[in-house]
Amino acid sequence: MKRGVAVLGSTGSIGTTALRVLARHRDRFDVVALTAFDNGPLLAEQTGEWQPSYVGIVRNGAEAHRGWRTGEACLVEAAQCADAAIVLNAVVGAVGLDATLAALYAGKRVALANKETLVLGGELVMQACRSGGGELVPVDSEHSAILQCIAGRGRADVRRVVLTASGGPFRGRTRAELGRVTVEDALRHPTWRMGRKITVDSATLANKALEVIEAHFLFDLPYDRIEVVVHPQSVVHSFVEFVDGSVLAQLGVPSMELPVLYSLTYPDRLEDTAMPSFDPVSLSPLTFEPVARDEFPALELGYSAGRRGGAAPAVFNAANEQAVTQFLAGTIRFTVIADAIASALESLSALPGRTREELLAADRAAREHVERLATGD
Amino acid sequence: MKRGVAVLGSTGSIGTTALRVLARHRDRFDVVALTAFDNGPLLAEQTGEWQPSYVGIVRNGAEAHRGWRTGEACLVEAAQCADAAIVLNAVVGAVGLDATLAALYAGKRVALANKETLVLGGELVMQACRSGGGELVPVDSEHSAILQCIAGRGRADVRRVVLTASGGPFRGRTRAELGRVTVEDALRHPTWRMGRKITVDSATLANKALEVIEAHFLFDLPYDRIEVVVHPQSVVHSFVEFVDGSVLAQLGVPSMELPVLYSLTYPDRLEDTAMPSFDPVSLSPLTFEPVARDEFPALELGYSAGRRGGAAPAVFNAANEQAVTQFLAGTIRFTVIADAIASALESLSALPGRTREELLAADRAAREHVERLATGD
Repeated sequence: MKRGVAVLGSTGSIGTTALRVLARHRDRFDVVALTAFDNGPLLAEQTGEWQPSYVGIVRNGAEAHRGWRTGEACLVEAAQCADAAIVLNAVVGAVGLDATLAALYAGKRVALANKETLVLGGELVMQACRSGGGELVPVDSEHSAILQCIAGRGRADVRRVVLTASGGPFRGRTRAELGRVTVEDALRHPTWRMGRKITVDSATLANKALEVIEAHFLFDLPYDRIEVVVHPQSVVHSFVEFVDGSVLAQLGVPSMELPVLYSLTYPDRLEDTAMPSFDPVSLSPLTFEPVARDEFPALELGYSAGRRGGAAPAVFNAANEQAVTQFLAGTIRFTVIADAIASALESLSALPGRTREELLAADRAAREHVERLATGD
Repeated sequence: MKRGVAVLGSTGSIGTTALRVLARHRDRFDVVALTAFDNGPLLAEQTGEWQPSYVGIVRNGAEAHRGWRTGEACLVEAAQCADAAIVLNAVVGAVGLDATLAALYAGKRVALANKETLVLGGELVMQACRSGGGELVPVDSEHSAILQCIAGRGRADVRRVVLTASGGPFRGRTRAELGRVTVEDALRHPTWRMGRKITVDSATLANKALEVIEAHFLFDLPYDRIEVVVHPQSVVHSFVEFVDGSVLAQLGVPSMELPVLYSLTYPDRLEDTAMPSFDPVSLSPLTFEPVARDEFPALELGYSAGRRGGAAPAVFNAANEQAVTQFLAGTIRFTVIADAIASALESLSALPGRTREELLAADRAAREHVERLATGD
């Protein structure tokens, strides 16, 4: 019996990876819904290949495609699609939250690549899991690694987790040097090929901060049991230390194919001979360094936002999204991204953040705050 | 409720480690039987501390201890001890086989540190597991690592395992250089502190050959799905590659405390704050190299003995034990150990090896063969 999969964000980096993986396992899975942001031509191609029962595009272009739903509402509609057992949420940004909540309330599995929704609405999302009977399975390589290491064992067995960070393209740079880097420099990631927003987040370590907050919710761990270590080769995807001192790690060449496949098959594994065989000799040496916390302040800002809770993680996430947009547009320098986050957190951390409406208001307030900083208002 | 543990080989390297670990968990475990080879004074001390109901010594010395059983039979008696739920078999050499079989037929868990018995009588031991309802849990760090990576998942999920080898004290030496090494050189292991026999086995890689054969039986894997890689730091204790291409590894500082503890608690984990916390930065870099198969021929000899099956693994093991004894006595050179194994396998591989008696006869024949080689008869 095939399991129906809704792919939200199907034309992006994770979405296209997912469809490549799914194409190898047509005997097990069927793509029943596709949504894209604005890439109509690619979405049309995917639709032709998979013949999903639901197709949506957030921003429709010149092409008029009959039967496609349009606007942001298509994400929730696709997530609620009756024949989808699994919703792969690979939307970029805070806009993915409602789709995640809708799928969880409908009792579906959410394969979550949209990390911002868990950061923005972690409490709401975990509440939706409990109420709706759905389950959240991470697609991030780091959280997938942790899940694989824990698999089958209770989380009470976990002493701490150590997320690995490649260190990004600017590992080893001084704060002064970081003030002079260009957008092009920031998009040249040493080990992972990803979308533009996440590549910049990887350069600032804001990406790792988001993952720390995600790990807090996904694995129900306090922040002092979540650590980060720099591992430039991106081969070890994370470590889990258990209460008896044992450590497990999940390893592999940097590729999102495995985390995507595992998010679909968890807790089982599916044979996939296209996945490359592991050769430790060719990947040697594996090195680990402490994080340069002074040079990459976004990580500490993420920890403090996470510890503060309430609206603070939403403020962190929105301020970061807004500042990265400005950086990619060439209007602010690289180091100003973290400055903008710090400023937003200082002004807005105390905002209420219990309901979806309060969190979205904090999100808007943080974006406006960072916008005002850039325009000097 | 405390679980009773019989510790066979309590005065050796693994035995003393086990008692140190057990002393930290007296609320969970009770030592109900102790046996030693010939170290009466230490056994008396351990007996005073633990007050076990059964005490045995294989070779009694000058001291007469009332109530101690003597001779090899004490191993089986201790293994059958009614109040022992777990038998930690840390005896050195082929003599441990009967104790393993007795415990398994009695439905007990055998925490197996005596790797030779599985190599000698792998089929018999797995048969005893099935018949008696006992279970075999490895104490070797490599097999414990594999078990931890597989934990909770079926073995059908495993594509292959990669055992790590430190490479021993002679990693990088040429065959000519190896002909000149001394006993003292061979006992200077770079990362692990162990008994003399196993330390020499580690230098020849015969130890890794024994582990490959053990892995074949423990995890029901064909030999072409068991590989070995040299990892000088001994931090990664082994890798498991799954059918979807994912790789898990178990890591830690080189210490037998964790594998011993895990063999007692498997599949659960027990909090142990004395186990050192893992610091990837201080253990960096982790390197991996191919095995120098021409310089260390014992590994290939082990693979071919394992593939041949029948009496061949028993011949490999006995010839190795005998040759190591000669090397430690100064009567043969280091490189002659592998030559002796090769000669014994060539002459004796075709011996029958289905029953315990046939295997023990092959064991004796191999020892005599190697003895004759050394004396030039």
